[in-house]
Amino acid sequence: MESISKLLDNKTKVGKAFDLFIQMLIILSLFCFMVETLPNLSQSVVNILGIIEIVTIVIFSLEYFLRIFFAKHKIKFIFSFYGIIDLIAILPFYISSGIDLRSVRVFRLFRLFRIFKILRYSEAIKRFSAAFKEVKAELTLFAIATLFLLYVSSVGIYYFENEAQPEAFSSVFHCLWWAVATLTTVGYGDIYPITLGGKIFSSIIVLIGIGIVAVPTGLIASSLTKVINKES
Amino acid sequence: MESISKLLDNKTKVGKAFDLFIQMLIILSLFCFMVETLPNLSQSVVNILGIIEIVTIVIFSLEYFLRIFFAKHKIKFIFSFYGIIDLIAILPFYISSGIDLRSVRVFRLFRLFRIFKILRYSEAIKRFSAAFKEVKAELTLFAIATLFLLYVSSVGIYYFENEAQPEAFSSVFHCLWWAVATLTTVGYGDIYPITLGGKIFSSIIVLIGIGIVAVPTGLIASSLTKVINKES
Amino acid sequence: MESISKLLDNKTKVGKAFDLFIQMLIILSLFCFMVETLPNLSQSVVNILGIIEIVTIVIFSLEYFLRIFFAKHKIKFIFSFYGIIDLIAILPFYISSGIDLRSVRVFRLFRLFRIFKILRYSEAIKRFSAAFKEVKAELTLFAIATLFLLYVSSVGIYYFENEAQPEAFSSVFHCLWWAVATLTTVGYGDIYPITLGGKIFSSIIVLIGIGIVAVPTGLIASSLTKVINKES
Amino acid sequence: MESISKLLDNKTKVGKAFDLFIQMLIILSLFCFMVETLPNLSQSVVNILGIIEIVTIVIFSLEYFLRIFFAKHKIKFIFSFYGIIDLIAILPFYISSGIDLRSVRVFRLFRLFRIFKILRYSEAIKRFSAAFKEVKAELTLFAIATLFLLYVSSVGIYYFENEAQPEAFSSVFHCLWWAVATLTTVGYGDIYPITLGGKIFSSIIVLIGIGIVAVPTGLIASSLTKVINKES
Repeated sequence: MESISKLLDNKTKVGKAFDLFIQMLIILSLFCFMVETLPNLSQSVVNILGIIEIVTIVIFSLEYFLRIFFAKHKIKFIFSFYGIIDLIAILPFYISSGIDLRSVRVFRLFRLFRIFKILRYSEAIKRFSAAFKEVKAELTLFAIATLFLLYVSSVGIYYFENEAQPEAFSSVFHCLWWAVATLTTVGYGDIYPITLGGKIFSSIIVLIGIGIVAVPTGLIASSLTKVINKES
Repeated sequence: MESISKLLDNKTKVGKAFDLFIQMLIILSLFCFMVETLPNLSQSVVNILGIIEIVTIVIFSLEYFLRIFFAKHKIKFIFSFYGIIDLIAILPFYISSGIDLRSVRVFRLFRLFRIFKILRYSEAIKRFSAAFKEVKAELTLFAIATLFLLYVSSVGIYYFENEAQPEAFSSVFHCLWWAVATLTTVGYGDIYPITLGGKIFSSIIVLIGIGIVAVPTGLIASSLTKVINKES
Repeated sequence: MESISKLLDNKTKVGKAFDLFIQMLIILSLFCFMVETLPNLSQSVVNILGIIEIVTIVIFSLEYFLRIFFAKHKIKFIFSFYGIIDLIAILPFYISSGIDLRSVRVFRLFRLFRIFKILRYSEAIKRFSAAFKEVKAELTLFAIATLFLLYVSSVGIYYFENEAQPEAFSSVFHCLWWAVATLTTVGYGDIYPITLGGKIFSSIIVLIGIGIVAVPTGLIASSLTKVINKES
Repeated sequence: MESISKLLDNKTKVGKAFDLFIQMLIILSLFCFMVETLPNLSQSVVNILGIIEIVTIVIFSLEYFLRIFFAKHKIKFIFSFYGIIDLIAILPFYISSGIDLRSVRVFRLFRLFRIFKILRYSEAIKRFSAAFKEVKAELTLFAIATLFLLYVSSVGIYYFENEAQPEAFSSVFHCLWWAVATLTTVGYGDIYPITLGGKIFSSIIVLIGIGIVAVPTGLIASSLTKVINKES
């Protein structure tokens, strides 16, 4: 009994090993999720994926019930962030196999929540959120500035390009897609200005805009360096 | 009378609520502006947009006249930055409905000036302009360097590509569009070098150039961090 | 005589005005250079451009001879950086009109050297070169790292894509063009991997590579901030 | 005998010259490797490349045996990193010419390992690895964050675009290619969302994502600046 309780305590050796095992299982489960989407899978692969899924669910279910059993405050754990995530990670399987509905596709998507299970085991995510909190004010500032810039760019390009390209730039919403692709410098090439005015306008916007949109990167980098320096 | 005066004082509770209300109204107004550009709108949506527009205009007009009424220096307010913005935000509506001219389209664009109304309520913008002032000298420097680089790139690529692609690279002005899209790394793919010389030239230019064009981003980031650190 | 000498001394008021005048003239001259490349220019525009060119040449020639005349060490000035640039900026005109050869096109390109004339008047360029000197070691380091990365990427993608796309990836040299466009994140879309191996290889390369290729930007930014902070 | 031993000691003058000579030879060898991939090479060029290859191999072999001969611990050198690299750089030539197998192509690729030979001579690489070690923790953090982001983006876009574009987004693996090209802002334009949901999803992902994926660049830049400042 005590040895099982040690499993869930990640300060003990066996607890660390168990953590690593669960992490590996989550990654395997996420990988299988990707494989399942491959078109023209052979029946044998489908069978293997099914077996892995069942084994995974059994282990995750066991882990979930053990965590409830050994929690000091059972109700508190069930409604905690990790408690809910752990439940969501296994629930879709039981519901879909029990009721056998057609809308299994949506439930399958729920399995993706397992990715959040991995957060429990990750020190990195904690440091991340600490770094984010530090520059929260600046990030909000740039979120507003970016939205402002996206709006102005979209309306501007709409007035320049709408007549010349009524399909691609058919509304300000369509122009927003252009603005995002351009100001983040992704530039797929599915939509771009062809009029002289549109080209001049977007040249000015992009030369100014990349200086705004890319700033948060610098802020997060400097903040994270600070957080890690404090720890060490 | 006094209670109305409190509305415009954003240090009181009711003043803050009023500020938030006006901000929401501006955002709603800007959103409607986007919806209006959608092709094939149903009549009922057009009607709703019309009603929102009239309500917005009435409230903005009221706000404008209240601000004049309660301003210590009435004339000074009218010709202040925010006074003019407030007027531009409502004027196009009255002019276009009064005279009913065909050129409503241009006037509709004037409504976009409402986006500047939101600046009054935004602490963020103030910090922004403080950060910009701090690195003004550096930004000017890089604006010059960027223009220099864009010019040299355009003339260079013109001599390499003009003969091979007389349509796309038909003049140095057309090449400027290529230079902007390339040095900002947007790279739509609508225009790119195909000759050996042009590819070598643009490889060199882009490897050097992105180190110049993207620098202001770093400058703004470091400056903004300083400004916010001073405040807190 | 003395008043003319003052013209060339940019510490006097009249000298500063003269500097500004020459700068404007250089910018006008560079702009005309762009206009000339426009296809289908009307005869009247060609005439105006011709007149501006002659006026510009006359003033630049006058400036050049005045600078020699008032220089303490005449020979030293003629062979100095600015002395040579000043000569190159006017020489092509005299040679091409004197001998009237067919290869005027190459000579016209020489006029572009006028852009370097503007360097004399620019404080910004001096600060720039100071900033560059400070991070010279780092920039050399990254130049080497970038070349290393470009080489490895090119050879790698050649082995993955050559068979599938023998046209686009026909040699390692062609792959270099892909490597530059990809690692600078320009991504025109004229050349990209289509095989599974090529996609996996370039995913890894680009995820690692952008962290190398874009670093100099950060180095220049931090160096320039230092240089300007020292001055103020 | 002693003079040959000096060759391999890069603190002596003759040793430095020898180092430089070997470096030049490596670069020549790598350049020839590129030239060989050019289609339609004339016979004379092929002959010259063959001669350069033989000369290079002879010198590299001589260098390798000299290094073994003058090494204090012969066995230790042979199994050291540089010892193995030096062997790999020459071995493929002897094997392929001795046995004359058809699979020479794979062996030719081994010649590329010569690029690692150059590391021995490069101070830059040492500083690099010092800089990398300093930010190892942060880089690991961002490697995890980037993988997390790539996974979530891929699964998300799969559910939005798979039905509309079953060819391009045929599985989550295909979507990973899109995610890499988008989040690194390369954006070739070979694959992009066309549904409304897909565009909204990728807009949000890219606006958040570039702030994560590009952070390591900033980290390496700041770390490298520190490392070089310490040395000077």
